[in-house]
Amino acid sequence: MFRSFLTLSMGVALASASGQALASPDAEALHRTATAMFSPLPSYVAKEGNPKNDAKVELGKMLYFDPRLSQSGFISCNSCHNLATYGVDNLPTSLGHRWTAGPRNAPTVLNAALHTNQFWDGRAADVEEQAKGPVLNPIEMAIPGEDLAVDRIASMPEYVERFEAAFPNEEDPLNYDNIANAIGVFERTLTTPDRFDAFLEGDLNALNEQELAGLQVFINQGCVGCHAGPALGGQIEARFGVVESYWEATREYIGVDQSTMPMDVGKFAVTHKQDDLYVFKAPSLRNITRTYPYFHDGSVWDLRDATQIMARVQLGNDMSDEDLDALMAFYGALEGEIPAQALQLPILPASTSETERPTMR
Amino acid sequence: MFRSFLTLSMGVALASASGQALASPDAEALHRTATAMFSPLPSYVAKEGNPKNDAKVELGKMLYFDPRLSQSGFISCNSCHNLATYGVDNLPTSLGHRWTAGPRNAPTVLNAALHTNQFWDGRAADVEEQAKGPVLNPIEMAIPGEDLAVDRIASMPEYVERFEAAFPNEEDPLNYDNIANAIGVFERTLTTPDRFDAFLEGDLNALNEQELAGLQVFINQGCVGCHAGPALGGQIEARFGVVESYWEATREYIGVDQSTMPMDVGKFAVTHKQDDLYVFKAPSLRNITRTYPYFHDGSVWDLRDATQIMARVQLGNDMSDEDLDALMAFYGALEGEIPAQALQLPILPASTSETERPTMR
Repeated sequence: MFRSFLTLSMGVALASASGQALASPDAEALHRTATAMFSPLPSYVAKEGNPKNDAKVELGKMLYFDPRLSQSGFISCNSCHNLATYGVDNLPTSLGHRWTAGPRNAPTVLNAALHTNQFWDGRAADVEEQAKGPVLNPIEMAIPGEDLAVDRIASMPEYVERFEAAFPNEEDPLNYDNIANAIGVFERTLTTPDRFDAFLEGDLNALNEQELAGLQVFINQGCVGCHAGPALGGQIEARFGVVESYWEATREYIGVDQSTMPMDVGKFAVTHKQDDLYVFKAPSLRNITRTYPYFHDGSVWDLRDATQIMARVQLGNDMSDEDLDALMAFYGALEGEIPAQALQLPILPASTSETERPTMR
Repeated sequence: MFRSFLTLSMGVALASASGQALASPDAEALHRTATAMFSPLPSYVAKEGNPKNDAKVELGKMLYFDPRLSQSGFISCNSCHNLATYGVDNLPTSLGHRWTAGPRNAPTVLNAALHTNQFWDGRAADVEEQAKGPVLNPIEMAIPGEDLAVDRIASMPEYVERFEAAFPNEEDPLNYDNIANAIGVFERTLTTPDRFDAFLEGDLNALNEQELAGLQVFINQGCVGCHAGPALGGQIEARFGVVESYWEATREYIGVDQSTMPMDVGKFAVTHKQDDLYVFKAPSLRNITRTYPYFHDGSVWDLRDATQIMARVQLGNDMSDEDLDALMAFYGALEGEIPAQALQLPILPASTSETERPTMR
């Protein structure tokens, strides 16, 4: 699956961009090529069955920042998907209940609603389904049951009212599904338009020469095979290590002996199919300069190293310094703007005598 | 010290408010009494030697929210003094590095700059000195040395520039003192005006009858002896347990056997003076409805219980239900507004290859 898609994409790329000298790309031709592979970020990622309204967005934001959705009262969604640091925690793998390190790197929440599925192994259909996981996971937020999460929120009259306003046509709106629906709608507002969007929308001066050159490399070298669409990723699953072993490559580049780490079998753990061994979702490259450390195990901190590793193990390519320089410049143009409204910290309702008290053990 | 101040305050209170029936307080007379004991919150709490400027406030906010001021990269000032929950974590005692529970309840950062000193035992002179503590404390943020904290921040060019802008007349502005100075200036903006301020400023209709009755009780029963001034507290140190043992009282009220807990000797641990045994700073009662659980050990969750315990062990008083009802109403008027600018999450600079990586152990 991965190889055939890649070949197809590269074919399109090479046909459209052929004849462009790397150092002086033709912005107009590159724009034509790029718009066939990418699309501008929408301001909102709608989902049928979970309509947006202002009350629901605000409620979702409150729940996103509320540490009472963790057993300890110390961890919120924002602890690991911190909006002050582009929706990640910048840790190799996240810390959860009782300081437990999780097995995989926390992907950014920004633009995540555009992914075809969620988690590194794609085991959740959308951000709503994803949101239900960590709250209950014993090594993340560790609430021991959906009902207990609902009871906590329902113990606060302000939340009860806000669920009624956010889900106006439902008889019993405060339930676990709707906790996830509200968080999901908030997350669907978290798209981060950047200069690459301006370029895609027709402003041919939005990217400078070096950034255009990087875009050209990105297309010509085949990166776009996995990192296409509005999020530059999030739509393809691929075996990590097509041409050579991922572990060997990271060992060489970062000097870490991966043999001391447990091997992550990827999607195989979910499907138990041989074809899914070491298969992971290709992440979005929007804001990639800010979402270090990289890969599902957070093993590589330097974006240039991570890019070279990807080129080698996925594409059988050694990137030149010139190509890497250009790619780094292009990545810089993918740093977007987080909606100001999302960054306005909500004031959370007071607990009541009915609210379960935090337990740290 | 505590007793003499209390007697003095009560004398003033009773003289001014004598003859006011509890159920129908005379707002004008009460206003005269109250303005002698309290004062409205300022919009900023200035400190000589640490002048305010916009660049410094913004820098201080960034540092306040930056988890890289912890060894793990997981804990920021805001983790325990969460502005979404009125500057506290609503935990009995805070969680720190490696999930270690600290010995005392985290006081709110809101209006803290108005306190005459900082920490429950008053061991820091002001918010600037306070801010230096948790960053280095091995069971809080756990950076093993001032220089290492400075190195982390100095590894990011954006921070270097922001320190130059915030401390324009200094040759080498990025140092540990100035990290604390910037955080301090941000915290000095965190005053939370409420309806009681409106009353103090002359709007006699700002408080309803029940709230006025509560203010009258607050004065007449002697609460004001320790909880006076603009923050209704933060200015007096007192032995916790004047009339009877604090531990006995909390055991009776909350059903917890305090004998199983280590006894906190309070300021004695700092001064080693017999007179300072069990002496703590009287906390501010601004936003007291939101800063549960109460006391230095966070042992009491219910504000009504906490009030009754204080009345008994400090004043030798059993409050009537009517008095407690009125006090609870008055406390509601002390819920203030956090400045919107402080609630706008900053976007933090990206780490560089020079930035020390987080270590969770």
